[in-house]
Order: sequence, then structure tokens, then C-alpha cells
Amino acid sequence: MSDIPSNKPYLIRALHQWCTDFGFTPFMAVFVDSSVEVPMEFVKKDEIVLNLSLEACHQLNLDNDWISFQARFGGVPRKIMVPVSNVLAIYARENGQGMSFPFDASKTSKLKGESSENAEKPKASRPSLTIVK
Amino acid sequence: MSDIPSNKPYLIRALHQWCTDFGFTPFMAVFVDSSVEVPMEFVKKDEIVLNLSLEACHQLNLDNDWISFQARFGGVPRKIMVPVSNVLAIYARENGQGMSFPFDASKTSKLKGESSENAEKPKASRPSLTIVK
Repeated sequence: MSDIPSNKPYLIRALHQWCTDFGFTPFMAVFVDSSVEVPMEFVKKDEIVLNLSLEACHQLNLDNDWISFQARFGGVPRKIMVPVSNVLAIYARENGQGMSFPFDASKTSKLKGESSENAEKPKASRPSLTIVK
Repeated sequence: MSDIPSNKPYLIRALHQWCTDFGFTPFMAVFVDSSVEVPMEFVKKDEIVLNLSLEACHQLNLDNDWISFQARFGGVPRKIMVPVSNVLAIYARENGQGMSFPFDASKTSKLKGESSENAEKPKASRPSLTIVK
């Protein structure tokens, strides 16, 4: 199946558009490793939740390989870069409706000092639509 | 949950776009009841599979409530109208990758002569990304 191009970025864009059209706030959960550029002070247990609303983001790009934008964290503008492969979920803040994605942390770039034994490895075998809160 | 607007049409459009971008043929499985306008001679066990490729369809509209287009069946042009609620799955013909959706046949418009006892009632409680072949 690995030779089939991923539909994940298409689903992310779809759910972002759904949130935007109905006035919901699109939140995106991200697994943080060395390939991700986010404010590390907001990372908890290798994860960060980002607000992807058009009000919060500038120059938002939801591309097939990368999600990038600029946003303020504690008043300071920061550049955000997230590989689509590291996206764990996208959902509406207001109701938790959205989609989570399978993620194999063993395949990602390690953070310094993190062993493979310590990495969380969700074992979901396929993406699923679910309520994530 | 019923007051939350459905994201199903957004996911259908996303997977249709994914198929189109990568040269796959988007197939859509539909539960057929009296609300659906399709060539009944191609319906099997209350279902029909439609080719949504841009080559096969004219005036394709993937709206939030209805999917409509014109296509030839046995050389004869036909108008197709499908409520989004009746869509069971959308997937790439070439690899089966796509998404299936939950469907409660008990809530749909009955075909003539069909009793509720005879209606199939898939009980999936939520949409799921899956391989459908």
C-alpha cells in the first residue's frame, strides 16, 4: 500500500474547510520530533495542539507534505512548520468532531535524548473518523 | 451530535479530488431508496456503484446535500441525483483506498414494496477510513 499517494492532506484540508465554513475553530494535534518547528515550550508529552483558524494564522499553507504558518505565541510571532506525517488529528475545538490519524512514532525523527523505547507508538492501523476532545 | 453540521460532503469532495489529482477513478457506492435517482436496472441489493470520474460525468456537482451529474449508461445519457446521506463509500477503483460511511437504512425513504424488516441496516456508528474493494 505504500506506493499509493496519501489522501491525508486532502482530508486535513477538507476538515479545515468544514470548520471554517461553519465557524468552528480548527485545532490540530501534532507529534513533535526534530522534523517539527514549533515553540517547544508549549509541547507536552511530545505533542502540541495548534490553532489553525484563519484568525490565528498568517500565511497558512496546507500542502501535501507540509503545513506551515505564522502565529503568535505569548505575543511573539513564530514560524510553524509541521510535516503532514506528524499530524495526529484535526478537529473542531467547539465539539471535538474531526478525524484522527494513525501514527508510528518509531518512523519519525527522534528528539535529542529520546530513546525509541520511550517514544509513544499508537498502533492504529488505519485512519479513522472519530470524536477527539 | 445531530446539531453539528456533517463533514461528510467535505470528505467526499476531498477523496474525489485525491483520486482526480493522481489519476485514479473515483467510485461511489450508494444506498438506493426512493430519494435516489439512478438507473434502477444497475441496482443490486439496494446498492449501485457510480463512476465519478470527470471523464464519465458531465455537470458533476458535489454539493453539501446532493451529488448530481449526467452520465451514459449503456449509451443512454441519464441524470443522476444522490443525497449525500445515501453515500456509502467513495474510493479509488484502482486500489480500493478511500472511505466508507455509516448508514442507517431505517432512516431512509423506502422503495415501493420494501418493508422495514427487509431493509439492510448497517450498524456502524461512525465514519471510518478503510479499504473498500
